[in-house]
Amino acid sequence: MEVGLSDTRFLSKIATSDGHGENSPYFDGWKAYDANPYHHQNNPSGVIQMGLAENQLSFDLIQEWIANHPEASICTPQGVFDLKEIALFQDYHGLPEFRYSIANFMSRVRGTRVKFDPSRIVMSGGATGAHETLAFCLANHGEAFLVPTPYYPGFDRDLKWRTGVELIPIDCESSNNFMVTLEALEYSYNKAKESNIKVKGLLITNPSNPLGTFFDKETLKTLVTFINDKNIHLVCDEIYSGTVTNENKFVSIAEILEEFPTICDHNLIHIVYSLSKDMGFPGFRVGIIYSYNDTVVNIARKMSSFGLVSTQTQHMIASMLSDNEFVDNFIRESRIRLAHRHDMFTNELAQVGIGCLESNAGLFFWMDLRRFLKEPTFESEMIFWRTIISEIKLNVSPGSSFHCKEPGWFRVCFANMDDVTVMVALERIKSFVHQTRMLDEIKTLGKIKTKKQCWQNNLQLKLSSRRLEDIMSPHSPLKSPMLQAQY
Amino acid sequence: MEVGLSDTRFLSKIATSDGHGENSPYFDGWKAYDANPYHHQNNPSGVIQMGLAENQLSFDLIQEWIANHPEASICTPQGVFDLKEIALFQDYHGLPEFRYSIANFMSRVRGTRVKFDPSRIVMSGGATGAHETLAFCLANHGEAFLVPTPYYPGFDRDLKWRTGVELIPIDCESSNNFMVTLEALEYSYNKAKESNIKVKGLLITNPSNPLGTFFDKETLKTLVTFINDKNIHLVCDEIYSGTVTNENKFVSIAEILEEFPTICDHNLIHIVYSLSKDMGFPGFRVGIIYSYNDTVVNIARKMSSFGLVSTQTQHMIASMLSDNEFVDNFIRESRIRLAHRHDMFTNELAQVGIGCLESNAGLFFWMDLRRFLKEPTFESEMIFWRTIISEIKLNVSPGSSFHCKEPGWFRVCFANMDDVTVMVALERIKSFVHQTRMLDEIKTLGKIKTKKQCWQNNLQLKLSSRRLEDIMSPHSPLKSPMLQAQY
Repeated sequence: MEVGLSDTRFLSKIATSDGHGENSPYFDGWKAYDANPYHHQNNPSGVIQMGLAENQLSFDLIQEWIANHPEASICTPQGVFDLKEIALFQDYHGLPEFRYSIANFMSRVRGTRVKFDPSRIVMSGGATGAHETLAFCLANHGEAFLVPTPYYPGFDRDLKWRTGVELIPIDCESSNNFMVTLEALEYSYNKAKESNIKVKGLLITNPSNPLGTFFDKETLKTLVTFINDKNIHLVCDEIYSGTVTNENKFVSIAEILEEFPTICDHNLIHIVYSLSKDMGFPGFRVGIIYSYNDTVVNIARKMSSFGLVSTQTQHMIASMLSDNEFVDNFIRESRIRLAHRHDMFTNELAQVGIGCLESNAGLFFWMDLRRFLKEPTFESEMIFWRTIISEIKLNVSPGSSFHCKEPGWFRVCFANMDDVTVMVALERIKSFVHQTRMLDEIKTLGKIKTKKQCWQNNLQLKLSSRRLEDIMSPHSPLKSPMLQAQY
Repeated sequence: MEVGLSDTRFLSKIATSDGHGENSPYFDGWKAYDANPYHHQNNPSGVIQMGLAENQLSFDLIQEWIANHPEASICTPQGVFDLKEIALFQDYHGLPEFRYSIANFMSRVRGTRVKFDPSRIVMSGGATGAHETLAFCLANHGEAFLVPTPYYPGFDRDLKWRTGVELIPIDCESSNNFMVTLEALEYSYNKAKESNIKVKGLLITNPSNPLGTFFDKETLKTLVTFINDKNIHLVCDEIYSGTVTNENKFVSIAEILEEFPTICDHNLIHIVYSLSKDMGFPGFRVGIIYSYNDTVVNIARKMSSFGLVSTQTQHMIASMLSDNEFVDNFIRESRIRLAHRHDMFTNELAQVGIGCLESNAGLFFWMDLRRFLKEPTFESEMIFWRTIISEIKLNVSPGSSFHCKEPGWFRVCFANMDDVTVMVALERIKSFVHQTRMLDEIKTLGKIKTKKQCWQNNLQLKLSSRRLEDIMSPHSPLKSPMLQAQY
């Protein structure tokens, strides 16, 4: 049976509030993919999943390491004698070697420019659990965090749902590449104050999801000075730090504290980390809180009882991430492959005139489709997006689901698929653009001014009477069902 | 560095409230053990851990299964090709084969008398996460659950800390073997009502931690009828169901619903399960919510994002627990070994006149030391308990930490140690009893009436000047440092 929603009597407000946020288009796109997933042979007209920030490009390296290290697992003849000790271990400090290996990995991802203290490593159920834990530690029900937009849609669930904490957007704009300015910060802070909402912190993602950009040193210093002046916390989500392709330019908040130790009260600084993105292990649920505040470390650790990492996983990760030769090679190779995929994808798009925000981190880029909207409104964005999903069959995520202030931006994930799928996706996008151009030209020539509606009807008829794989053939003259959405 | 508590400025009430409950003697005992753990050779005078409900007796069976099933792991040459798919899987429904195997295991633990629907299996970060999730789903801040005493100390953290839910004790008494009566239920319910506290549910552990007993069918029917009459939820923690030694007599709430389908609104019934106790896998953090309420299944599943089980672990568990030959043999053999250990331990205690509540489940028994207290107060219990920890060096858990109404009861865990350690623990207890008897006899003869203080001082001097292993020698005339506490 499929369990659905039915009897909501006697349940809590949290249970019946929809605060989990799954009614957003972000998750709707996933459902559309799940209902009709693309497959080269079995379902070539299915939806291609470009809404999932997965890092699939370097699994061969991990597979090779595991094959060479049977002693790292409690499920091999070489490792099974550790089974009892590992299966029974449930101390919320975590295996000491696990904390050491995570601290080591975090340092190496940042080019060993900073060190992390293993005694400050607190585990949690993914970054999801880490964010909720920090929200529980830092703010009371009704208090708020400032968050620059666009931001990861899951934050509404992670920080707000069960804690009662609020998120207040800091609106950022394409005119300055969505940078966070002191003016925007002050504006949002003061607006919250005017509404009698107590601001307890600022939450940033660095590198940014969905932008794929990261903060420069001066901006970070501005943010740190701001939160110190206001006596509020700074939560830095750095779960994409290992995906930065020009690594030397990335600046972690840890480096700011090391380079400018007196810039702020360190008790206000907290980092969220995870192995879901940099290593590509979302299934293993390794979330990390690294706080410079002793009490937060202590309390978050007690809260970690609600989402400890399986010791089976801790044990394996401890071996893998303390092997520096492997770690350094993996990070280097992963960056190269991500950069290659990113550049290939965005270059191809550029060739058909689709621009993207310049970026060099993350597992996605921020695609500018503003000119394709009928009107610069979120209604148009949604109409356009629904057609992308249902007709072009690409699950990209609309900017509105990231609380973006400007309609027409879309997040495109590029590292969760193989090369063939990338080519199919690009082909579908190019087809659409060519078709659009053709129509534009016809329009410009004034030839369809009076016949537009008639033409559209014809197109619609044709589209619905043909199987999509035929339509999507590169040889078909009618390659873009997006026309319906656009005109 | 060791991270401590320091700067609590700007943190939440939850973070600064001590609501995690770790300041109870239950956890203090663990700390005493951690500071000085017993070891046969290296630290024979250390504290023996009898406060930890671990099931260590059947690990050889699991080890054997793992050695014979390398394909069940993603970290073996036979299984590594599943690595990518498993590491990337993060759907909060869980691996379908994992849910199936858990439903299968739950059924077989209950003698296949009931079936469980895999689509209702919701995972969570251990039973700890399961209880919190249910509390978040079923009750608002300030609302309450009734809980029969004595109950597991962790419930205060699990159900109350971050949810703001209250627990209201139902006082049970030794006079009827701590059974839950309708009168006690009604009394607590009405008392809450008088205090304007909204009761949203009843929480029971079946089998009971700390009692090691389980509910008979008639009592279960009474409870179900009660909660149905009041329109409140029933949460049944059945995490020890596989430890019942006379298995045929155990009745799960699932059996009540199957045998008497109209006895209540099934939407009100929720089971908490785990592999930490029955399988002995606390490190793997496999907690389960099985709810008969569709909305709770749906919402709890969304909440499980905060504490999903590592897919590495899901994958292995799925193989292991769908092997019925292994499962049936493991359950049978584990029950036999637990029964043997339980009976041996309690029989030895009986020989020196120490009684225990009759029980046949759990990884512990409920030891009656009331006659050893100076006075029937919790102050005396604490004085006595501190001396047990610091002098006899056994970490047993005092009844007060389980909210027991009567002073003088202690929970003794028996399945987290090997046979040699059991013998040492028994020897220490017997020594104490013999010494006590000797003193009692001397007292009765009236020989030390005037010299008591002087004698005590001498004893204290001797104790502090001798190494404990000498004192604890079975040949020593001065075997019990407990004398200090008792007189």
